[in-house]
Amino acid sequence: MPEPAQPAVLGGTQTRGRRPCLVVVDLTYGFTEPPSPLACDAGEALAATAQLLAAAREHDVPCVFTRIEYTDGDRAAAAAFIEKVPGLETLTPGSRATQIDDAVAPRAEESVLVKLFPSAFFGTPLASLLAARGCDCVVIVGASTSGCVRATAVDALQHGYRVVVPRAAVADRAAAPQEAALFDIQAKYGEVVELDDALALLRGAGGTA
Amino acid sequence: MPEPAQPAVLGGTQTRGRRPCLVVVDLTYGFTEPPSPLACDAGEALAATAQLLAAAREHDVPCVFTRIEYTDGDRAAAAAFIEKVPGLETLTPGSRATQIDDAVAPRAEESVLVKLFPSAFFGTPLASLLAARGCDCVVIVGASTSGCVRATAVDALQHGYRVVVPRAAVADRAAAPQEAALFDIQAKYGEVVELDDALALLRGAGGTA
Amino acid sequence: MPEPAQPAVLGGTQTRGRRPCLVVVDLTYGFTEPPSPLACDAGEALAATAQLLAAAREHDVPCVFTRIEYTDGDRAAAAAFIEKVPGLETLTPGSRATQIDDAVAPRAEESVLVKLFPSAFFGTPLASLLAARGCDCVVIVGASTSGCVRATAVDALQHGYRVVVPRAAVADRAAAPQEAALFDIQAKYGEVVELDDALALLRGAGGTA
Amino acid sequence: MPEPAQPAVLGGTQTRGRRPCLVVVDLTYGFTEPPSPLACDAGEALAATAQLLAAAREHDVPCVFTRIEYTDGDRAAAAAFIEKVPGLETLTPGSRATQIDDAVAPRAEESVLVKLFPSAFFGTPLASLLAARGCDCVVIVGASTSGCVRATAVDALQHGYRVVVPRAAVADRAAAPQEAALFDIQAKYGEVVELDDALALLRGAGGTA
Repeated sequence: MPEPAQPAVLGGTQTRGRRPCLVVVDLTYGFTEPPSPLACDAGEALAATAQLLAAAREHDVPCVFTRIEYTDGDRAAAAAFIEKVPGLETLTPGSRATQIDDAVAPRAEESVLVKLFPSAFFGTPLASLLAARGCDCVVIVGASTSGCVRATAVDALQHGYRVVVPRAAVADRAAAPQEAALFDIQAKYGEVVELDDALALLRGAGGTA
Repeated sequence: MPEPAQPAVLGGTQTRGRRPCLVVVDLTYGFTEPPSPLACDAGEALAATAQLLAAAREHDVPCVFTRIEYTDGDRAAAAAFIEKVPGLETLTPGSRATQIDDAVAPRAEESVLVKLFPSAFFGTPLASLLAARGCDCVVIVGASTSGCVRATAVDALQHGYRVVVPRAAVADRAAAPQEAALFDIQAKYGEVVELDDALALLRGAGGTA
Repeated sequence: MPEPAQPAVLGGTQTRGRRPCLVVVDLTYGFTEPPSPLACDAGEALAATAQLLAAAREHDVPCVFTRIEYTDGDRAAAAAFIEKVPGLETLTPGSRATQIDDAVAPRAEESVLVKLFPSAFFGTPLASLLAARGCDCVVIVGASTSGCVRATAVDALQHGYRVVVPRAAVADRAAAPQEAALFDIQAKYGEVVELDDALALLRGAGGTA
Repeated sequence: MPEPAQPAVLGGTQTRGRRPCLVVVDLTYGFTEPPSPLACDAGEALAATAQLLAAAREHDVPCVFTRIEYTDGDRAAAAAFIEKVPGLETLTPGSRATQIDDAVAPRAEESVLVKLFPSAFFGTPLASLLAARGCDCVVIVGASTSGCVRATAVDALQHGYRVVVPRAAVADRAAAPQEAALFDIQAKYGEVVELDDALALLRGAGGTA
């Protein structure tokens, strides 16, 4: 005899947003290109992100990029993070590792936020930008899934936004952390979706004014 | 022939802190006691946390507790989170689910922060408390490991603190997310340690004035 | 001969918002009722706020209230503030000083945020609430004008919101700081308006969905 | 007959900090040099800041600088601020107005934070830097007193730090707002001190290990 139906405890469905922002997390050469010590398997994510950027731009959806960079002066603030991830030492100002990959290059009128930490919100004006643009959800792509993408997803939820993560547009260094991160995001923080679904969301947005 | 030695990319070791704060995340009955829909397998974590609290209190280490509670007015702010985790609906003011488990009860002079979101820092004055008390590291315990403990660990790092997570003092609903979370924390955000090691840290602190 | 026209350096005009939130700052008896050491001359502000609340509620505009309260555990976080303003010591849990004045009592479904500091945003989930409700501007009332109202106005601007302060609905302990605060707000952070103008904004909102 | 002694309501004295950070707010040419529309009367503040920087550097006190700059992409986040203060439009990347005045030039190892808003904390990693460096108080200098200096002072207090403002090292566009701001800071948020007192604090610090 089957179990009686139980109300879902986790993994419910968020109301679909109508005014998205596309947030491209850390797709700089340091994360997209071997032999960088931080490189992820990012080929598919770059291609998917390029498609998402094209759709967003066509429909006046704001696009925001993040990149990590440590000046000599800023390094002290992130010392505990750099101790855990020594590969971050390579992200020095002016280095190729801190430049956004040409496959997903930002336009002059798009915001590129420098961050020191995993979340795209932390120590940046991203929350102000979303509020000022009247957004109600965030489509998050980039790398790494289990690191900065996930931290950004949790923070987007905390800031009052719905969260959409297109599976094809996020990349990591290994399959297990990526799958565990997507499982947790889908269970607790947002909607892990196919690329077509994310494209439809951006195309349906029709501007966020 | 062995591989040449590679510099570590992830999983480095953080400098040990000297002025810890013990942060007890969400050990309310809603997370510690079946049949709550949110309950974790928390027996060992409660016992370990009780030991850590005793050590912290003996050495004047600040102890801070969090609990989740949604008033009718606050629920709108967390709507996207509650949609994903419908079990959070049970955390109504005055309910047993929002009371801290007697096994780890706070003292009158200890801070109990109400939060709406995963991270103990978000929408609470925890960061101000740590700064005002002169702390340099945070020992994080409680539930769930893959949810609020992990989000708090990432946020502690972002706020400039070193992170220590005693494996025995965190609990989750299933083994796989717990292990994946501890793996990521050890790889990128802090030190996952044995209980004795965390006890030694608290005992060595000797006050944070 | 007259000076050539100069572009305004300060005191420009913000675009009018369409989805306001009414934020009622610290209108508890500790700030509204002598002989509290913190009392402001709040009679007119209470009456004006009551009118604004009625208009907001009639048009489904979210209303949020703040109050200050220090538990024994939280006092350490705000020690530097309490040292400067010893009158804050009277704001103990359960005291009349921490209760919102009946003249502007919140409804059960409205959010009442406890804060430790001047800004209504700091250490509270107010920003998340505004984002989740889709607001684009904040109407700020309460006390004191030069303290918590002004700090909230600056923070609202920083979080990406337009700021409206109805002059009749804010109160202070002395005229000079009140006037200086309103001057600075009008010069740099938001629109200081007459009560009728704020009422019209709330009535024109017609819901914030 | 004299009034009976009253307990102070405002204007108490903060415990003196021991591990300061010197925060130099917005001393870029846009704020220090006519005919910039934003220029303050900054000559004395520049000279005093130079003295404070020398003392801080001699005693290993961290020095942090802020400057305001709006890229095309970031401007939307601060639209409401720029509408009020059109002079901010001049702060474009690469312009002289956004460069720190040579009289108080930062060293390569010192942190220079770009901000979009009044407070040096908002949308920047300043709080993380203070925590990671183990600071317990902030000495705030720069311009304008009634704007970014004051907003930074309030935020420093909110983040758990004691606040020191050396009167000689802050500048504004007019005397009345400057005096009102210093009055409020001394009344509620920190210690407004003579330059010698601030120098003694920095010299006594002897490193912030």
